[in-house]
This record gives sequence, C-alpha cells and structure tokens, in this order.
Amino acid sequence: MRQAGRYLPEYRELRKGRTMLEAVSTPEVSIEATLQPIRRFGFDAAILFSDLTVPFTPMGAPFEIKEGVGPVVHDPVRTAADMERIHRFDPREGLPFVLETIRGLKRELAVPLIGFTGAPFTLASYLIEGGPSRDLRRTKGMMWSAPEQWHALMELLSDVVAEYLVAQIEAGADAVQLFDSWVGSLSPEAYREYLLPHMQRIFARLKETGAPVIHFGTGNPLLLPIMREAGGDVTGVDFRITLEQAATLVPGAPLQGNLDPTVLQTNPETVERIAREIVRQGSALPGHIFNLGHGILPETPLENVERLVEVVKGERP
Amino acid sequence: MRQAGRYLPEYRELRKGRTMLEAVSTPEVSIEATLQPIRRFGFDAAILFSDLTVPFTPMGAPFEIKEGVGPVVHDPVRTAADMERIHRFDPREGLPFVLETIRGLKRELAVPLIGFTGAPFTLASYLIEGGPSRDLRRTKGMMWSAPEQWHALMELLSDVVAEYLVAQIEAGADAVQLFDSWVGSLSPEAYREYLLPHMQRIFARLKETGAPVIHFGTGNPLLLPIMREAGGDVTGVDFRITLEQAATLVPGAPLQGNLDPTVLQTNPETVERIAREIVRQGSALPGHIFNLGHGILPETPLENVERLVEVVKGERP
Repeated sequence: MRQAGRYLPEYRELRKGRTMLEAVSTPEVSIEATLQPIRRFGFDAAILFSDLTVPFTPMGAPFEIKEGVGPVVHDPVRTAADMERIHRFDPREGLPFVLETIRGLKRELAVPLIGFTGAPFTLASYLIEGGPSRDLRRTKGMMWSAPEQWHALMELLSDVVAEYLVAQIEAGADAVQLFDSWVGSLSPEAYREYLLPHMQRIFARLKETGAPVIHFGTGNPLLLPIMREAGGDVTGVDFRITLEQAATLVPGAPLQGNLDPTVLQTNPETVERIAREIVRQGSALPGHIFNLGHGILPETPLENVERLVEVVKGERP
Repeated sequence: MRQAGRYLPEYRELRKGRTMLEAVSTPEVSIEATLQPIRRFGFDAAILFSDLTVPFTPMGAPFEIKEGVGPVVHDPVRTAADMERIHRFDPREGLPFVLETIRGLKRELAVPLIGFTGAPFTLASYLIEGGPSRDLRRTKGMMWSAPEQWHALMELLSDVVAEYLVAQIEAGADAVQLFDSWVGSLSPEAYREYLLPHMQRIFARLKETGAPVIHFGTGNPLLLPIMREAGGDVTGVDFRITLEQAATLVPGAPLQGNLDPTVLQTNPETVERIAREIVRQGSALPGHIFNLGHGILPETPLENVERLVEVVKGERP
C-alpha cells in the first residue's frame, strides 16, 4: 500500500503548494515522497510514490487529481467514438518522469523498490465514470450491454498496463504490484467473463521479465481464487477475510496483507495485539508480506505505525 | 430493496418541497410513496417507505437526511459520555408515524407489506461517524480498542432494532427485513467476535412473533454463512456472488436477490437476459425472492423495470 501520505508531517510540508499531479509528475518530489517513510520507519521495501491513473494523459484521456475527490477525467470514455480518442503509448515517451523517479530511487535506496499501476477494471472505472463512483453504473453498464466495446477497452488497457509495468521493471523496479481497487463490486462469474483473459495476458507478459508480481484487489474476498488464477506471484488480501481463511481459498499462495487500516487509528497496544495475530497467521503460509489490507488513512498517529514496525520486525519481545 | 425513489416521476413530484425526513415522518406521504411503485409495476410485495435511521431521534441522537449525502447525526456518539445521551425507547411513543403508516398501508394494499430497519453495525456506523463514511475508521476504532463500550452500544441497538421491528409486525407488517448495509467491511472473524451474539438476540426476539424475517447484508459475500448462523428465515444476497455460488455457502437457505442494479441502467434486452439467468438459478433453491442485489439507482429507465417484472412474473414466453 502507499507508504507516503498526509499522516506524515514531512509529506504535508513537501506537498505544500503542489497538486497531487504535480507531485507525481516531478521526479525530485516523487523521489523524496518515496524516501520519507523509509527514512522515518525503516520499512523493508519502498513503494513508488505515484498514482494508479498516471497512464491516462499519455493514453489521450487528460485528467487531474482533485483534493478530497480523486482522479477526474475531463472527457470520460463512454461511446465507441470516445474510444477513438484513446490509444496505446510508449511509457518511455509518455511517462518519462516515472521512469526517471525509479532510476533516481535505485541510486538512493538500500531496500527493494516496488513499482505499481492500476488494473484494467479499476482504470476503466475512472475513464468511464469520469471520476470515483460508488455504484460504477456506467462502467458495469458498458460491460453488461456492450461486451465488444468492453473487451476492446480491456485489451487496450491490458497492453497499457503491461507495457508500463515492464518499463518500470526495466528502469529498476525490483517488483511490481497491480492494484484492482474497484474490482470488488464484481462476482467471480463476472470476473471470469469480463476480465480474466485480459488479466492473464498482463501476467503472461510480466512473467517474461522475471520480476515478482503482487496482485491486489479489494472489496470481495471471494474473488481471491480467480485473481490467483489470473496470475501474480503473491496475492494481496484485504481486511474482509483473515489470512488463515484466505489460505483455504488460495492454498499454496504466498499472501500479502492484511491489517485493517482502521486498527492504526487506535493505540499502540491494540495495534500490537492485532498485528501479532496477523504475523502468527502469516507464519503458517508458504510466504507472507506483512502489509495493510488497504491504504493508510490520513489521520493515522505516527506512534501506531512505529509500534507496528517494531512488532512486524520482531523487535519487541 | 427500496421500491420508491427518484427514478419514478410521481415520486419526484411527491417529494417536491419536502425533505426526506419530512417524507418518512408523514404517514400520508409515506403511504403514497409506498403505494406508487406497486401501482405502476404490480410488484408481488410492498416495502415500507422509510429510512434505516429513523430510530435515531427517539433514541436521543437527532439527525437529518442530507440530500446527496445521507443521514447526518448532529452530535456523534463516540465517548462513554456520549453513550449516556442515548437510550432505549418505546416505538409506539417514539415512532408512531411509522406504525400509523403501516396500519394505513394494510388498509390499502392487496399484497404483503415488508417492514424494515438497519442492523446494529450499520446504525452504529452512522451514530459514531456522524454520517456516511468510506472507511468507518471511528466505528471500527471503537470496536478494536474499546470492546466494552462497543458491546454496550450493540446491546442497546439490538434492543432498539428488535423492539422496533416487533412493533412494525404488531402494526401489520407481514414480514420484516434487517438491512446491514455497511457490514461488508468486516471479516467473518470480526463479525463473530463483535456482532454475532447481538444479532442472534435480535432474531430470537423476532422469532416469537412468527413473522418471516429477511436478513440482508452487502459488501462481503463471505459473510453469508455467519449471517445465516445469526438468523433470519431468508438470506439476502448482493451482486458480488451468484445465487448458485451463494447456495454452496449457505446450503438449504431460501435466498433473496440478486440483480446488480447497474443492469437496470442498460436496455430491456440486457435486463431480460441477466434476469432470466437469476430466475433459473433461483428455481433450484429451496426458496427464492427475486430482488435487486442493492438499492435501485436514481437514473433507472422505467422500461427496464417494466421488462424485469414481466420476466420475473413469467409474462414473457
């Protein structure tokens, strides 16, 4: 999950006078935002400071990230005519600032760097709705009633996502993560019909690089088996299921997760108790990356994150 | 799910110049809003026009329903001192307008009437957050770190919910539904620890009435087994799972659901195709109430609802 953020005073300072889009588009700022939480907490790996949606502009769908709202696409992609406006692109030309950030980070970091982007369904939801949406009515509307257009959009986005992640790996990312933040509003059956072949194509392309891939989705733990089937070396788990139960759904899978970010709102003792239980469950898995089950909340007290790191690193008796 | 709503021109007319809270507090208006969709579409049962949150004011937590936002509680209940302000109440005294609406409807309706309210977790989330919240950080924060206060609040809300539903049944409701709209952000383990005993107490109390009870939650289909364990004669299913797969999680349970409301945004042909598949899957169950998997969207075209009713009633070859 994102490590940088408004819970860090140094991040709030860094963001002063800068929009989110400026911050993710300026290597100097992205590098600093990536390094801040590593410096403060000594995490075992760094995750690139960026946003899921940065491929939109070079795809032909300019957008902004509105404070307190999220990504807003100026001209949503809804009709066959809208589809003409968007296209594949070379990430080295379209997103040079991300690759420069990665190269800069690799010179500074002593821990592995994880690159990332959004999965096709999640990207499509912003492109089609024009912004965050609770019900995804236009996105799913296209899926149910215009399957040819839907699959064409998924093919395009799968290529964009795969080539962008490959470019991140070539620039130096040690692993990459695919975030499917909105996929949880689908059933496993709908995933199979509308997403699976596209997701499999992405993971097949990434396999050629040899870099480890984390596949994370949130909102419906019943999707874990089909997301595992789609691909990824590690399956990310949100807080709607315990790691123990997740292991029964995807036996043999290394898992990432899954502390509920709301636990970090409480106090160090509660954080310690619940984190220890996750570490215990994770130790029975073939592999476990301790992480939150979703993004860190802006109001998180620093002392709770400090305690969490101590517990996970085994620095507390 | 709610049958009335902004997708109906007659409803928009009825609501002109009236806040939502006025509409649900005025029997004449609530009766008319309940009857409108029955008149137009000929549904097999009517659901009371009301809101999950109406018990708040007689509980001592005054609120309003803000257009485009949802329920907003003026003084959120967060501390032990806040808990002193809220209390059980007699629904005959605290919510006479709902019971009058039910009695009025029973004189007019030729189909069964379903009463409802929100389940304790969902009600608590509004009381604690002060309004709708994406992350429920304060609600879950209390749950994780102040379990005694949490269980006291759940006990109080369980009594409020049970007595309110009993009063609805006594006033004439033929069945009642308990809506747990926000419970999907919990894992089955958390449900077991923080909700299960309270939910069981509600269903035990309702059993004394003999009226059928529908238990609906949304957001995490892995909760179905424990929600079934909690109680209810019929288990409501959202659109994150097929009825067929739900039946494997809660074998032998009559199910309600589960058309994705976004399907109703498309066109009559798509509605027909997907609704037929749900009817087919439902016919293999020990019992099936066809319904949406979540609330109807304001932009729903009327012709799509008409087609849906024709398909479900078997009026199309």
